[in-house]
Amino acid sequence: MSALLDSLRQICGTAHVLTHDDPRTDLSAWETDWRRRDFGNALAVVRPANTAEVAAVVKACANTFTAIVPQGGNTGLVAGSVPDASGQQIVLSLQRMNSVRAIDPDNLTMTVDAGCILQNLQDAAEKAGYLFPLSMAAQGSCTIGGNLGTNAGGTQVVRYGNTRELCLGLEVVTPRGEIWHGLTGLRKDNTGYDLRHLMIGSEGTLGVITAATLKLYPLPAAQLTAWAAVPSLEAAVQLLGLAHQHLGAGLTGFEVMGQFALSLADKYFPNLRVPLYKATPWCVLLENSDHESEAHARSQFERLLEVAMNAGCVSDAVVAESIAQAQGLWQIRESITSAQAQEGLNIKHDISIPISQIPAFVQATDALLLQEIPNVRLVNFGHLGDGNLHYNVQAPQGGHDQVFVRDMEDRVNQLVFDSVARFKGSISAEHGIGSQKVDKLPRYKDPVAIGMMRAIKSALDPQNIMNPGRVLAP
Amino acid sequence: MSALLDSLRQICGTAHVLTHDDPRTDLSAWETDWRRRDFGNALAVVRPANTAEVAAVVKACANTFTAIVPQGGNTGLVAGSVPDASGQQIVLSLQRMNSVRAIDPDNLTMTVDAGCILQNLQDAAEKAGYLFPLSMAAQGSCTIGGNLGTNAGGTQVVRYGNTRELCLGLEVVTPRGEIWHGLTGLRKDNTGYDLRHLMIGSEGTLGVITAATLKLYPLPAAQLTAWAAVPSLEAAVQLLGLAHQHLGAGLTGFEVMGQFALSLADKYFPNLRVPLYKATPWCVLLENSDHESEAHARSQFERLLEVAMNAGCVSDAVVAESIAQAQGLWQIRESITSAQAQEGLNIKHDISIPISQIPAFVQATDALLLQEIPNVRLVNFGHLGDGNLHYNVQAPQGGHDQVFVRDMEDRVNQLVFDSVARFKGSISAEHGIGSQKVDKLPRYKDPVAIGMMRAIKSALDPQNIMNPGRVLAP
Repeated sequence: MSALLDSLRQICGTAHVLTHDDPRTDLSAWETDWRRRDFGNALAVVRPANTAEVAAVVKACANTFTAIVPQGGNTGLVAGSVPDASGQQIVLSLQRMNSVRAIDPDNLTMTVDAGCILQNLQDAAEKAGYLFPLSMAAQGSCTIGGNLGTNAGGTQVVRYGNTRELCLGLEVVTPRGEIWHGLTGLRKDNTGYDLRHLMIGSEGTLGVITAATLKLYPLPAAQLTAWAAVPSLEAAVQLLGLAHQHLGAGLTGFEVMGQFALSLADKYFPNLRVPLYKATPWCVLLENSDHESEAHARSQFERLLEVAMNAGCVSDAVVAESIAQAQGLWQIRESITSAQAQEGLNIKHDISIPISQIPAFVQATDALLLQEIPNVRLVNFGHLGDGNLHYNVQAPQGGHDQVFVRDMEDRVNQLVFDSVARFKGSISAEHGIGSQKVDKLPRYKDPVAIGMMRAIKSALDPQNIMNPGRVLAP
Repeated sequence: MSALLDSLRQICGTAHVLTHDDPRTDLSAWETDWRRRDFGNALAVVRPANTAEVAAVVKACANTFTAIVPQGGNTGLVAGSVPDASGQQIVLSLQRMNSVRAIDPDNLTMTVDAGCILQNLQDAAEKAGYLFPLSMAAQGSCTIGGNLGTNAGGTQVVRYGNTRELCLGLEVVTPRGEIWHGLTGLRKDNTGYDLRHLMIGSEGTLGVITAATLKLYPLPAAQLTAWAAVPSLEAAVQLLGLAHQHLGAGLTGFEVMGQFALSLADKYFPNLRVPLYKATPWCVLLENSDHESEAHARSQFERLLEVAMNAGCVSDAVVAESIAQAQGLWQIRESITSAQAQEGLNIKHDISIPISQIPAFVQATDALLLQEIPNVRLVNFGHLGDGNLHYNVQAPQGGHDQVFVRDMEDRVNQLVFDSVARFKGSISAEHGIGSQKVDKLPRYKDPVAIGMMRAIKSALDPQNIMNPGRVLAP
């Protein structure tokens, strides 16, 4: 292996090949996954400066059959970007590749290195007068390469789609160390198979994304937020339909939160002053982005809420009067994860269900779990606008959270995922498979699809050096 | 081969396996391509009734190494859906599979057989109160399976994307005759490689699409059309930017037409009364779809046009006063293809260029062609909103059109495509590769991409029985 390390040092410079040989070097930031469940041991952390260096690193690894784990901000939630414990895998960190290569206003695109932090891209777009709409809790540290590798979702998917819908072109280093120059800014290009979409969401198992051309949008003139109490999940789904009809593409956010989830937010963050939740089982956060004016956005919202109240699907509602109030409402939504962590360890799910089936799914799955675990507590919230629920399971009041998770996680996962399958949903809506769900996939994914995935993996990475064991089990 | 034909008759019924053995049977509708340039000779035309029959047909063909050419409405423009002249290939027609399987209003989706005619799907959606926005000239006879196989574009791509952006799930028969059950209606599903996007646009070379789950949208409350005279292509691009800003997602159409293209429309369809074109080199057709009201749509349009006139990028404009007027403006746009055909045979291109580069591309390419062929006439029009030009080349006034096309087509194609490549465009924006452009692709497509495409094709269709010779040269 020292020959490989010598090659890598020649390619990237000694300072950018970090190993455990120097006892002063702490590699844990690259070796430990975000949820602190996986602790790997890397042969080296390699930090190339540009695409040519990435290609040379991959070639050197291919020559020595060395496995490569591509890594961006290492904020993934399914342990897909950390090395295994063998000490034989290298982490290929894209963090030094963080330039915005170009912004093309008339084409509404920007071309960026994979290691750019998401929030920096939002800022660069805004500075140029445009919106890059990908948005999620980890945006201060996740990278666009990681967003693309995992096809990240977030809070504006109802309007702008997942990361894949925001990408027009890619530059990728293949498992052979070749460079695919696919950085097109075209909205129409029917010249062969769509390799871009194959790479996006493949979690680094088919190549290394080194750059991307992304879509920009005009900045909205105003963004307003409303909070509605709804009597049932059925009513929330009905409200979503009315919101599509009355706000059109202005509807950029539609989040649902259950009463218990909001009670935890209220308990641990009392200064957030959670509105309306005590009298209703569900609340909905709506966002309306308007290209005309704040006054127009407000009148649109008021019209929608009036129609919804008359239809009986909203019992009470507030529209934020200021940007600070709007941010406060979003903070409540985003505080739920932290609040439930303070309440204790819990069993998390990132699932999607056809929107029309969500009320029936929640009713059926709640009943199953309560039958299995009397008094179990369900922290249910998520992006209802795109059918994505974070359906989390918390120990009964007074139960020991660590014991609960240790003893019940497998059983609860199976109950929830089997129910997801019955309702034709997905066991991973936006987080991906990584290594965390790799053993579960064969039970829930069509076997013909898995067969095609394996054939493609073998064809493009016959040595199985790109992030092996992720997405597809060995 | 008679053993194969016997099997096919057993699978589909004798009435649905058409061959030349019966001299009364005319197969030319399935054997001749839409532009009447390719005349094939099929072993048989097979018309299965359902997905199980498709799978059995593919298995029977795989067992005998028989090539399969999937076919929908056979309206493609690159000769991708007709058999070769060998008499050894079967045409697999999906036309009998034409049911809308389900409409799910709360999920905003519909699930349909591949053989459904596009216009029937638009009608079914509208009857349920929703919009299926895919729209193109061939909609009365093209099928959704063909739209998916070729990733068709059309006139509303600026807002709703190409066919791939409108599809959430697929059912596909693989080259082995297995059925991949991927008919999900989920907007988020990160459970492995995106096989859906790999199949879409693969022109039947990786499998047979038998059904799809498609996105629906709320019906707009009003749709208004405007016609603007612009002093230059630069001004048209500037107007597009203003339209994005002022109409937001209301902008559902943005078509540009050159003066010569419009003069042909005026010459052959004088009753269409082409407005404004005599005093300006370019006209733009804009469509604004509004979820509020016609009055709102009109005020938005008027505000946009006022801003654009003050900015100098529009010299004159009209907003249609009635639906009949709006349809009349669209008819002008759609009459150009027919008008130029009446003027004589011409050399057609379906190209895309980054929108910011279109003015420079047109200037440079016009100059190249005029240098090569003095007085050549350029019929230039297209979907500027998504960077797609139909950049067509007509013989000089008084020249013999057939001789011109025969002698000049290869040379003109190369001049145009080389120019497209210099401006980082695509030689096929929305029509695909088929057999017409298959020999040109290697010159213009990244070789690493072609290598990956070949690896995928070999992995999924090792016998090369699915539409062989299309997309990838043998």
